[in-house]
Amino acid sequence: MRTEIITIGDELLNGMRVDTNATFLAERLDRIGLPATFISSVGDDIERMAESFHLALSRSEIIITTGGLGPTDDDMTKKGICKVFKRNLIFHEEVLDQLNIRFEKRGLTMPPINQNQALLPQGAKFLDNRFGSALGIVITDRNKLFCSMPGVPREMREMTDAELIPLLKQRVGNLVSIRRVLRTSGAMESVLAEKIRPVLKFAEGVSLAYLPSYRGVDLVVKGRGTIAEEVQAGVDILADRIANLLGDVIYTEGEIEPEEVVGNLLREKGKTLAVAESCTGGLLGGMLTNLPGSSDYFLGGVIAYDDNIKRDHLAVPPETIERFGAVSAECAKAMAQGVVRLVGADLGVSITGIAGPGGGTDEKPVGTVFIGLATSDRAVHKKLTLGSDRTINRLKATAGALEMIRQALIGN
Amino acid sequence: MRTEIITIGDELLNGMRVDTNATFLAERLDRIGLPATFISSVGDDIERMAESFHLALSRSEIIITTGGLGPTDDDMTKKGICKVFKRNLIFHEEVLDQLNIRFEKRGLTMPPINQNQALLPQGAKFLDNRFGSALGIVITDRNKLFCSMPGVPREMREMTDAELIPLLKQRVGNLVSIRRVLRTSGAMESVLAEKIRPVLKFAEGVSLAYLPSYRGVDLVVKGRGTIAEEVQAGVDILADRIANLLGDVIYTEGEIEPEEVVGNLLREKGKTLAVAESCTGGLLGGMLTNLPGSSDYFLGGVIAYDDNIKRDHLAVPPETIERFGAVSAECAKAMAQGVVRLVGADLGVSITGIAGPGGGTDEKPVGTVFIGLATSDRAVHKKLTLGSDRTINRLKATAGALEMIRQALIGN
Repeated sequence: MRTEIITIGDELLNGMRVDTNATFLAERLDRIGLPATFISSVGDDIERMAESFHLALSRSEIIITTGGLGPTDDDMTKKGICKVFKRNLIFHEEVLDQLNIRFEKRGLTMPPINQNQALLPQGAKFLDNRFGSALGIVITDRNKLFCSMPGVPREMREMTDAELIPLLKQRVGNLVSIRRVLRTSGAMESVLAEKIRPVLKFAEGVSLAYLPSYRGVDLVVKGRGTIAEEVQAGVDILADRIANLLGDVIYTEGEIEPEEVVGNLLREKGKTLAVAESCTGGLLGGMLTNLPGSSDYFLGGVIAYDDNIKRDHLAVPPETIERFGAVSAECAKAMAQGVVRLVGADLGVSITGIAGPGGGTDEKPVGTVFIGLATSDRAVHKKLTLGSDRTINRLKATAGALEMIRQALIGN
Repeated sequence: MRTEIITIGDELLNGMRVDTNATFLAERLDRIGLPATFISSVGDDIERMAESFHLALSRSEIIITTGGLGPTDDDMTKKGICKVFKRNLIFHEEVLDQLNIRFEKRGLTMPPINQNQALLPQGAKFLDNRFGSALGIVITDRNKLFCSMPGVPREMREMTDAELIPLLKQRVGNLVSIRRVLRTSGAMESVLAEKIRPVLKFAEGVSLAYLPSYRGVDLVVKGRGTIAEEVQAGVDILADRIANLLGDVIYTEGEIEPEEVVGNLLREKGKTLAVAESCTGGLLGGMLTNLPGSSDYFLGGVIAYDDNIKRDHLAVPPETIERFGAVSAECAKAMAQGVVRLVGADLGVSITGIAGPGGGTDEKPVGTVFIGLATSDRAVHKKLTLGSDRTINRLKATAGALEMIRQALIGN
């Protein structure tokens, strides 16, 4: 069975928007064992859209489109559908009523243009839109399933999970798709591959993919088949063996981000955290507070970009900076200790480094980063030797800091 | 002339990677007047790849692919090219020599597998890869141009700008494409559209696109034609009129980010800045320090996530928090003043708000954010009323703070 995704909108074809809708849908389809065979994008042009729809119908059984369902002139997906399936647009009184209620609830009067959204292709079924006014459209024709969803990511995502996936699961029948994601930090892809090679013989019918990012390498173990227990067992054999081999290099299983892993550990252990950031300028604090409820364990800290702030507020001894430099193990430790004392946190973490592109020396080239970790009575450090890209160096520094906190919390 | 982009890789089809390569290429192609007619993605599968290549050659004159040029088994783009164009892979001694030199320079021995990269399709021309070992491949066949580039974004981007775009420009002939981007902050798309409508009559042969994001709405004025002066004049007439109409709502022209606009203004005026962040937890400092050289004007600040830090380190009077709450105009102003005093900056900016999803009340619902701005002798504030999404609220709060700093620096 071939599944195909078509994303619609001029903003994709002229490079003004990254197509995150296709990625989201592809991930959801892969998860239920209907991986996309093709993904394509087409502009707000009725002829080209029809050309794309015809092509997709000629080669795939399931076609999912996003975008072009809004009320304005450049939203042409419904016209494209009518053209390709030779159907008319029919006015749906009950849809208009629902639209009016939606606007009223928000204390608004519906603009006349939105009446268009009650015009829908003949013989279609609809998918509910919890966050917006454009319904999803489902057409079944000669055993093909054609489904159009809005392009607003929030609306499309909710509709996919609540409406589309259950619908598609009926078509998949008894095909089962299972994945386990082991997330690692601090080890290179090639090193992991070398370690894992001996257990790959246990991977019959199961695939392993490496997915590197600045946060580390995710290992994705996937299996597919018709008997759920067998697929699960196959995935588990390989995933468990890899987990045993790699041990603490794996910081979590599943799709939890490192800041959440650290947050959960802090909450569990009833500890509080503060940060002292130099080259990352607040990035780590920004990540930690991305999670609702982070005030349970995160107190705040100091952005010590300027060396005066390191001295005056984090109480880093001037001699330390003079003798070892602001980018040094000694300074990192003093910064972490300083923020622990200043805000009274159980744990303090610091980052100081040369993010680049300027500021490097022979002894401390661009990419040299020191991370400090302190409690009220102890301080340790870790040195990272990163590359030349400022943005990536800063992100890797935050990942290194989170990993250092995690290792401390699990007792290493 | 139809231009088509094909991105190759299983990671795109299973939703593990967002396809930023397609977006980058689409933007570059649009810029030189060769906008993409279709964009599609295909997995690491020789049959499907050949199917995609045949289709593209049947409907487009220029085909650009990315991905699948690495040395390992799952890199199959060269095989796909050979299949579709009926060519053989030829061993290139001089390419192998270059590869060896590249590895030697980095003090490495070339792994044997990389020898594959000296095998290249017969009759192809090559594009230099400054950052990696896979050359770009260009095939010209029956007046079609087929070009394959590596999928590593850094390598692909450099190759596009240095090699591909100059090559394509030769084919475009005298077609000129000009765009001006006016970036606005603090006004809704519908409000801008209403204001701009009267001058749209001057837009003959020129298009205007609205591109909203959390940072505001970008207005993209584009023109295309054969006489450069005429196209430029057409674009300028519309862009200048819009600029006059909107005034200070436009924070910059071009592709500079708000933190750079603010940074340039601070540098110009010789002023320093410090931040006091509550609900954004360091996000604003993280953005400001994303720019190399930001230490010229950015000193650092305090992440006052916990109210004790607002009191103890930013010297916000306890009565202020008791009487008005930590999310209030009074607290925002006191935080901004506190950080100015603490670190001795010329300007202090603060953010305090209810990012959500929890913590809202009837009086101060989720999305209520106060921004404070202070010098040593004055403090002002701005209130934002945002939505329910924590991530977007935090980003919009940073955008609001940057805009407030900018307005202050230009004297409003």
